[in-house]
Amino acid sequence: MPEFSIDRVTEKTFSDFLFLLDSLALYEHLDLPDEHARSRLWEEIRSDHPKFEGYLGRLGDEPVGFVTFFLTYSTFVARPTLYLEDLFVREEYRKRGFGTRLFAFCQNEAKVRGCGRMDWMVLAWNSPSIQFYEKIGATRLGWYVYRLEGGEW
Amino acid sequence: MPEFSIDRVTEKTFSDFLFLLDSLALYEHLDLPDEHARSRLWEEIRSDHPKFEGYLGRLGDEPVGFVTFFLTYSTFVARPTLYLEDLFVREEYRKRGFGTRLFAFCQNEAKVRGCGRMDWMVLAWNSPSIQFYEKIGATRLGWYVYRLEGGEW
Repeated sequence: MPEFSIDRVTEKTFSDFLFLLDSLALYEHLDLPDEHARSRLWEEIRSDHPKFEGYLGRLGDEPVGFVTFFLTYSTFVARPTLYLEDLFVREEYRKRGFGTRLFAFCQNEAKVRGCGRMDWMVLAWNSPSIQFYEKIGATRLGWYVYRLEGGEW
Repeated sequence: MPEFSIDRVTEKTFSDFLFLLDSLALYEHLDLPDEHARSRLWEEIRSDHPKFEGYLGRLGDEPVGFVTFFLTYSTFVARPTLYLEDLFVREEYRKRGFGTRLFAFCQNEAKVRGCGRMDWMVLAWNSPSIQFYEKIGATRLGWYVYRLEGGEW
């Protein structure tokens, strides 16, 4: 039985990371990163001061899921927040606890880094994810999320 | 007629920043930063690598509003996002365009720093702010916001 492991995305595992990121975008009906975006992600993975951290979950050699996060900040709590940007497990590997393992990994990172909170967003139509997070005991906040895209400046 | 200016929060203007942060917390019915939180904010303001940037809007010498933000990251766009953590104008100074000036300042920072997006959250009951952002042309996203607090790890 192959073991489940979680490791930082490296140059060697970058293609697995892109495969999983594409899979997530398809699952969320969002646009895939284009060629230019892929080049910029490659630079981040190689950077000494990357703008996000990415970790792959693997079952033996097989990439089964991933997380990305970065630290933000709460001015009221006056501590960093671990902001979970992506958490994804491939459909054929669900219901085996890998999502829980990836989430617990992030929760531990939040603890180790002295964060006061962990925040993330879920698409309103994504009931399986909503159930997953409510089972964990997370609180849904009464906030709306607003956005301006770069084309608008 | 005193002029409106926007400047980075410094050690000299830290007490004005705290006053405005408290005013925002009261307005949002949220807990004020406690003494320990205030000390940590002071360290951030003095830091060479602060975890957020704060800017005061002043009318002459009078602090009338403020913004705080930091850069996050979109893995799909593969560019930084300017995340607006706080934008606040004191009640007695509203309806005079200061909020618009503070927002435009952030929008320009997003442009200058090569951001692909600008994101922020609004309390669902806060109709005046929602109207303000919809007038600007911002899009409300179909996402729910989830949170775990540090006491939970």
